[in-house]
Amino acid sequence: MSHLFTQPLKVINCGLESFARNLAQAGGEVETLSWQPPAMGDIQAGLDLAYLMQHPLVEQANKNAFQRYLDAQPTLVDVMPAAEAIPEMATRKLILHAGPPIAWNRMCGPVQGAIVGAILFEGWAASHEEAERLIMDGVIDMEPCHHYHAVGPMAGIISPSTPLFVVENRASGRRAYTNMNEGLGKVLRFGANSEEVIERLRWMRNELAPTLRVALRFSGDVELKPLMAQALHMGDEIHNRNAAATGLLMKRLVPALLGSGQPLDELRRVIAFILGNDHFFLNLSMAACKVMMDAAAHEPFSSLVTVMARNGVEFGVRLSGTGNRWFTAKANPVEGLFFPGYGVDDAAADLGDSAITETAGVGGFAMASSPAIVKFVGGTPDDAIANSRRMQFITLGGNGAFTLPSMNFAPTAAGIDARKVIDRNILPVINTGIAHRQAGIGQIGAGITTAPMPCFVEAIRALAEEVRRHTGETS
Amino acid sequence: MSHLFTQPLKVINCGLESFARNLAQAGGEVETLSWQPPAMGDIQAGLDLAYLMQHPLVEQANKNAFQRYLDAQPTLVDVMPAAEAIPEMATRKLILHAGPPIAWNRMCGPVQGAIVGAILFEGWAASHEEAERLIMDGVIDMEPCHHYHAVGPMAGIISPSTPLFVVENRASGRRAYTNMNEGLGKVLRFGANSEEVIERLRWMRNELAPTLRVALRFSGDVELKPLMAQALHMGDEIHNRNAAATGLLMKRLVPALLGSGQPLDELRRVIAFILGNDHFFLNLSMAACKVMMDAAAHEPFSSLVTVMARNGVEFGVRLSGTGNRWFTAKANPVEGLFFPGYGVDDAAADLGDSAITETAGVGGFAMASSPAIVKFVGGTPDDAIANSRRMQFITLGGNGAFTLPSMNFAPTAAGIDARKVIDRNILPVINTGIAHRQAGIGQIGAGITTAPMPCFVEAIRALAEEVRRHTGETS
Repeated sequence: MSHLFTQPLKVINCGLESFARNLAQAGGEVETLSWQPPAMGDIQAGLDLAYLMQHPLVEQANKNAFQRYLDAQPTLVDVMPAAEAIPEMATRKLILHAGPPIAWNRMCGPVQGAIVGAILFEGWAASHEEAERLIMDGVIDMEPCHHYHAVGPMAGIISPSTPLFVVENRASGRRAYTNMNEGLGKVLRFGANSEEVIERLRWMRNELAPTLRVALRFSGDVELKPLMAQALHMGDEIHNRNAAATGLLMKRLVPALLGSGQPLDELRRVIAFILGNDHFFLNLSMAACKVMMDAAAHEPFSSLVTVMARNGVEFGVRLSGTGNRWFTAKANPVEGLFFPGYGVDDAAADLGDSAITETAGVGGFAMASSPAIVKFVGGTPDDAIANSRRMQFITLGGNGAFTLPSMNFAPTAAGIDARKVIDRNILPVINTGIAHRQAGIGQIGAGITTAPMPCFVEAIRALAEEVRRHTGETS
Repeated sequence: MSHLFTQPLKVINCGLESFARNLAQAGGEVETLSWQPPAMGDIQAGLDLAYLMQHPLVEQANKNAFQRYLDAQPTLVDVMPAAEAIPEMATRKLILHAGPPIAWNRMCGPVQGAIVGAILFEGWAASHEEAERLIMDGVIDMEPCHHYHAVGPMAGIISPSTPLFVVENRASGRRAYTNMNEGLGKVLRFGANSEEVIERLRWMRNELAPTLRVALRFSGDVELKPLMAQALHMGDEIHNRNAAATGLLMKRLVPALLGSGQPLDELRRVIAFILGNDHFFLNLSMAACKVMMDAAAHEPFSSLVTVMARNGVEFGVRLSGTGNRWFTAKANPVEGLFFPGYGVDDAAADLGDSAITETAGVGGFAMASSPAIVKFVGGTPDDAIANSRRMQFITLGGNGAFTLPSMNFAPTAAGIDARKVIDRNILPVINTGIAHRQAGIGQIGAGITTAPMPCFVEAIRALAEEVRRHTGETS
C-alpha cells in the first residue's frame, strides 16, 4: 500500500466529466474515459443484451445469415410492370410506399403527394380531389414496398403499372424489385404530382421500360455485384453518389440498346434520359442490396439487421431472427447541407427505403470509398473514413466483395448486429437526401443521419423473448 | 560554456549515418538528418543553383509561365488527319515518334516496329523489308511529336493519314494534337505491325475518325478541364487510369453520335470500340496537358519544366526558359508489376510522351486521387498519397482546377521547377505502362518511375548561362 501512495497519482475517470476536473485542479494526472452504459442506461435492454451477447444460438444463427448475405449474387434479369412482377398488384388497387406501415392520415406531405400522383398515373381518378376521396373511402390499399420484396427511394411509390427492375439472387433464385429513377427536380418520389410529373411516368412506362426490357434480352443478365465493387473504386458509395455506377451500367447497356433493333429515335431518348441522371443506378443499388439482405432474412435467433427503412415519420428495422416484425421509432434528424434558400425547418423527416444500402454495408458504411461525397452531404474526407471505421464496431464482419481503396482496400463493414449497436452505443450511419416537408417541392439538401436507438432496443427485446421461449432459459 | 557542457548531449547528425552510431553507443541522444548535397554533390550544378535560386528574373518568369499554365482551357474542337492538322506532314514522308530526337539505328524495338507499321499503313511500302529499305535510303523523315505540338503514348507514332484529336487552348487559340488510342493487345504503340494491327488503323482512319468528327460538330466543343477534374474525383489519375474519364467523355459523345444522323451500324462499331477501352481518354488527357504546358512555354528565364518525354532510350526534358532545347539522359528503370510470365529483363526502357501528364500536375503527381491505381502500378494507397505530397516540394504551386479528395481536396502539385528538383534531390514521379523490349509483344506491366536527375542538371546549367549572358552577372 505504501508503494501505491508514494507514486504520482494517475487516474482514469469513468463517469461524469466534472469528477475529472477536480482531480486535474489538484494536480493529478487524469484521463476521462468516453463511456456510457449500453442502451443509454435502459436496464431491461442491458439484461436482454447480457443474455444474448455470445449466446451460442445467436452466434450460430448470425454466422448462417451473414454467410447467405455474402453468397448472394444480385443480377439484373428483367424489366416488367409491377402487376406482372407482384401478382397481388394485378387484382387490387394497391400502392406500395417506403418504410414501415403507416396510415394515410399520419403520412408526411411528400408521401401523400406521391400517392395522389400514383392514383392519377393509374387513371383511377381524374383529379386530386377525386384521388383523395378514393383514399378516404378505403378503395386504395397502401402497404410497404418491403412487404413485397420491393424497395423505392424517398416516397418509394410503386403502383400496378409502374415499371420495375427485376434483380435476382443467382445463389437462390429469389427476386427483388425496384422502380426506376425519374431524375431530379419535380418528381413523384419527392411528392410532386403535376401533369409534367405524370407525363414523365407515362413515358417511362410506355417507352423507357419496354426499350430497356428488349435491350436486357440482347445484353443478357447484368451481374450487379462486380459493377458495385468497381463503382466503390471510382468514388461512389452507391447511395448518394452513383455517377460511376450509372456510367458502368451504361457501358453495358448502350451497346445492347444499339444492337437491339429498336428505332433510333426511341434509343436516343432512352439513352439521353439515363445519361442525364447520375442517380439512375441508385434504385438498382437498392434492389441489389435488398436481394442480399433478403438472402440473410428469416434465420431463427439471428440478431442481424435485414431492413432499415423510413416512411417520413417513423424509422423501421427488421431483424433476421424476428422475421417480418417491424421495430419502429421516430426518425432521427438529418445533419447536412441544404440547397440555397432552404433550411432545417423546411425538411421532411428522414424518408425512403434507400437505407437498405447501409443495411447491406454500402452507402454511409462505405463512405471511405467516396471522399467526394462530403461535397454533397457535408463533413470532410476524414469524417467519411471515420464513419466507415466506426461501422466496423457494430457489424458481423467485412464484405470482401466491396473494398475501400482509401482504407487500403479493407472490406466494407457489413451485417449490422443489433446487439452491438446497443452494447457500443454506436448507431448505423446513413447518407440520405432531404425532401421538402411539403409535397412536390422536391429535394432541398442531403446529409447524414443515424438509425434511432429505440428500434434496436425493441428488436433485441423481441429476439431475447424468442430465444428464452425456445430454450426455456430465464435470464 | 559551462552551462552547455552540463546539459545532456542532444546531437543532430548531418552526414554519414555511422557517425551517429558512435554517439548513440556512447549514450548520446542523436537524430540523423536525411540530407544530401543538392544535385547529388555536383559542384557546378550547386553553383548554378545558388545563382538561380530566388533570382528575380527567374522568379518573375516562373510566375508568368505558371499563370499561363493555370489559365489554359483545353477544349476538344475537332478530329482530322495529321496531314490536315500539321501542314509539314502533307508534303513529306514524315513520321512522328515519342520523346526527344533519336536516330533510327539507336531506337528501341517497339519504336522501330511501330515506324515500320506506319510505313505499311501509309502504303509507302508493301513489306517489312521494303519499309526498312526506305528508312535506310533516307526517304523517311523521323522527328519527335513534340516538335509539332503533338503527343502520343508509348511509341507515339503519327504518320500523315493518322487521325488526330485537335485540342485547342480557349485562352490563346493555340492547338495541340494526339493520335487515338487503339486499345490493348497487339497495337502499333507497343510496336506491333501485323496485318491485324494495320487493318485496325485503317478502320480508325476510315470510320472511327470521320464519325467522331461529325459527332463533335453536333455536340459542340468539349471542355476537357472540368471533365479531367471530375475524373480525379472518380479514382482516375488520368494517366494510367482513365476509366472514369472515358465514361464521362462518352456521356457527352454518345448522345451526339446518336443525334448526328450517321448510319446505326457505324455508330454501333464506334461506340463499342470506345466503350471497350478504358484507356481511350488517355490520349486526350495528354493533348490537354500538352496545350497547358505549351501555354507556359517560351517564357525567357523560366525554370518551369514544359516537357518530359521518353523515346525508349533517352528521357528528355524542356524548360520554358530554354525554348526548344532538349536536355536528355538515360531513362531510369521502372519499378512495377509485371503481367504473368514477364519480368524486368523483358522490359523496354521507359517510353512515350505520356509523361506530359505528370508535367502538367496529373498522373503520378495526382496519384492521391486514385488509390485504386496501386493495384495496377504497385504500392499502397498511402504510397500514392506520399507521392502526391512529395511533388509539392518541387513544384511552383497548386492547380486549383485539379483537386485531390483524399488529401482533403488539396490542389495537385503542378509546375515542376527544375531548380527545386536539384535542390531537394526529389525526382518527378511518373506512372507508366511497361512495353516488351521486342516489337509487337505489347504491354507487359505497369509501374512507377522517375525523371533522371542529369536532365535537370543540364537544363539548369543552360538556363544559368542564359541568365548570366543577359544580366552580365558572373556568379
